Amino acid sequence: MDAIDNLVTLLSRLPGIGKKSAQRLAYHILEAPRSYSSALAGSLSTLHDSIKRCSVCGGFTETDPCPICTDPSRDASLLCVVERSQDVRVIEDAREYRGMFHVLGGLIAPLDGIGPDDLTIGALLARLRNDRVRELILALNPTVEGDTTSLYIQNLLKDTALSVTRLASGLPVGGDLEYADRLTLARSFRGRVPMHR
Amino acid sequence: MDAIDNLVTLLSRLPGIGKKSAQRLAYHILEAPRSYSSALAGSLSTLHDSIKRCSVCGGFTETDPCPICTDPSRDASLLCVVERSQDVRVIEDAREYRGMFHVLGGLIAPLDGIGPDDLTIGALLARLRNDRVRELILALNPTVEGDTTSLYIQNLLKDTALSVTRLASGLPVGGDLEYADRLTLARSFRGRVPMHR
Repeated sequence: MDAIDNLVTLLSRLPGIGKKSAQRLAYHILEAPRSYSSALAGSLSTLHDSIKRCSVCGGFTETDPCPICTDPSRDASLLCVVERSQDVRVIEDAREYRGMFHVLGGLIAPLDGIGPDDLTIGALLARLRNDRVRELILALNPTVEGDTTSLYIQNLLKDTALSVTRLASGLPVGGDLEYADRLTLARSFRGRVPMHR
Repeated sequence: MDAIDNLVTLLSRLPGIGKKSAQRLAYHILEAPRSYSSALAGSLSTLHDSIKRCSVCGGFTETDPCPICTDPSRDASLLCVVERSQDVRVIEDAREYRGMFHVLGGLIAPLDGIGPDDLTIGALLARLRNDRVRELILALNPTVEGDTTSLYIQNLLKDTALSVTRLASGLPVGGDLEYADRLTLARSFRGRVPMHR
């Protein structure tokens, strides 16, 4: 296997990149200036050393705790629960929400063998006991797994004084939070509704 | 700019990868085992050292001349002209053609400022004078630029005894050779037609 085949094989493991796309990318990189492939190689080789998980919220960060968790201007009475670290970025880009975050690291999915213990729900409960959170906003994808996880967390908290809300369904059902546009996402924050107990 | 932003910026320079896709890829790489990003970084950093252009055909290769140009079992009386090195791979995968190749390095595109002198047409004419080529097969994309370039080369050779053919239009007009399926491409080789003078 030559160097191009090797790169094609590696690129085709990325999500949404098939063999033809991987070939196109590999040849593009080969024809681009050498400085581009060097920069990309450098970025990839230092990535895992530069980025760790925040010990408070569980999101990816270069400093621990992360800049969001240590920002005194943010509203510590609001805690937004998301599936993955990239959802924090998407919500930050929408510039509607100014509270704190908690990254679950996944969703409950019995068919994939993912239960509550595989997520950071224990850490979430510990934060809720210690922090001065008044409202928990569940910002999970509007899918079966997302709804299951939201209901599970709501159930755990039903005997507390905490207000538990979830994002309004401005998001298309069955869609992916990552691809929502800024305005739809902002509206779903504003229109968030209490979960019925 | 943090390490993730840096990677996102680099990835979004790739063809067909927008900002959202680049973010998705970056987080996928971050969540994948560290061995994957190391392998990808290694592959990228050695790519330009491993791969050079063949001094005969102009295609990308690890050895110079390339394995195709030095393969004695191939028919040296057939020479297939392609735009880019990846087209050689596509045609090889179709397993219909067993002659030699010549990579032009582009197509004539006056609007982009690309003229005949920017391509390897001089080297092609030199090969035709020295080699025992009987048939020149023009395998360029069926686009305006591809047709222009085919006609230009045909014109240069109209006073020679060389047979000049082009691939049959089994390929959809306006399409891209890179995305043709194996059977369509094989049929277009078999049905290649002489260019009228």
